Amino acid sequence: MKKFFPLLCALTLVLACQNQSSQSLNPETDHRDNITAIRQVMLDQQQAWSNHDLEGFMQGYWQSDSLKFYGQSGLTKGWQPTLDNYKKSYPTPAHSGELNFELLDISPIAQDAYWVMGRYHLAREVGDAHGSFIVIFKNIQGRWKIIADMSASDH
Amino acid sequence: MKKFFPLLCALTLVLACQNQSSQSLNPETDHRDNITAIRQVMLDQQQAWSNHDLEGFMQGYWQSDSLKFYGQSGLTKGWQPTLDNYKKSYPTPAHSGELNFELLDISPIAQDAYWVMGRYHLAREVGDAHGSFIVIFKNIQGRWKIIADMSASDH
Repeated sequence: MKKFFPLLCALTLVLACQNQSSQSLNPETDHRDNITAIRQVMLDQQQAWSNHDLEGFMQGYWQSDSLKFYGQSGLTKGWQPTLDNYKKSYPTPAHSGELNFELLDISPIAQDAYWVMGRYHLAREVGDAHGSFIVIFKNIQGRWKIIADMSASDH
Repeated sequence: MKKFFPLLCALTLVLACQNQSSQSLNPETDHRDNITAIRQVMLDQQQAWSNHDLEGFMQGYWQSDSLKFYGQSGLTKGWQPTLDNYKKSYPTPAHSGELNFELLDISPIAQDAYWVMGRYHLAREVGDAHGSFIVIFKNIQGRWKIIADMSASDH
């Protein structure tokens, strides 16, 4: 047993360090995969919104009381209050209309966090609406979720 | 020597893991220190701006071509173009006036990254101005720097 002990130590070292760092061997591929996954979340949001499925749209957000949404009505904390605000402001399909995101910039903040800057365009019966946004995405248990959103409608 | 080898392995393991992770033994203290340091950067920015020292104000930003500033004139990339925009929009102390930041939320994104959501208020001769912002801070070589900024003036 004794003679295997150094080997065991070395193995423990390797495993412990692998566990500490989840960096892949190919960060470039990871980055491309992350961008693709984040784009997909926003495409899914676009589609859900355009079907007036506001709960579906909210699946892109972190379902937590720590979610922060900063918009025209100030700072909203939490997933449920954010959904409630959307429901109030966009009560019918005529209010929500068809959503299009224009993604201007997607940049990494950390290995598991990105920001997306862009424009939103709402084509709708009650009058079109446009504005700018930045959202912060974080990989939470393998899924990319928006943890913070600041949106500002055009003047 | 042989009998020290397991000890050496264990020591290597401890040192390697310490080196891999820069997490302190007290994350709460770290968090408080980070918040204090970030607030100080913004206080310094406030003071520089109010002295019409736009270069001084820009010391709070990451001096990189990868800095992103997203404002009324769209997306600006890089530290120098951001400074140039400020110089154009705020050519004299009458235009820059006195800056006050109102910090509404400071939240961690990663160990070395935070966002700050808030309001800015400019008291100035050419007419007061107000708006909302979110900035992303990252600890770069021990200093907290803004790597992304989205600002929107009030309607």
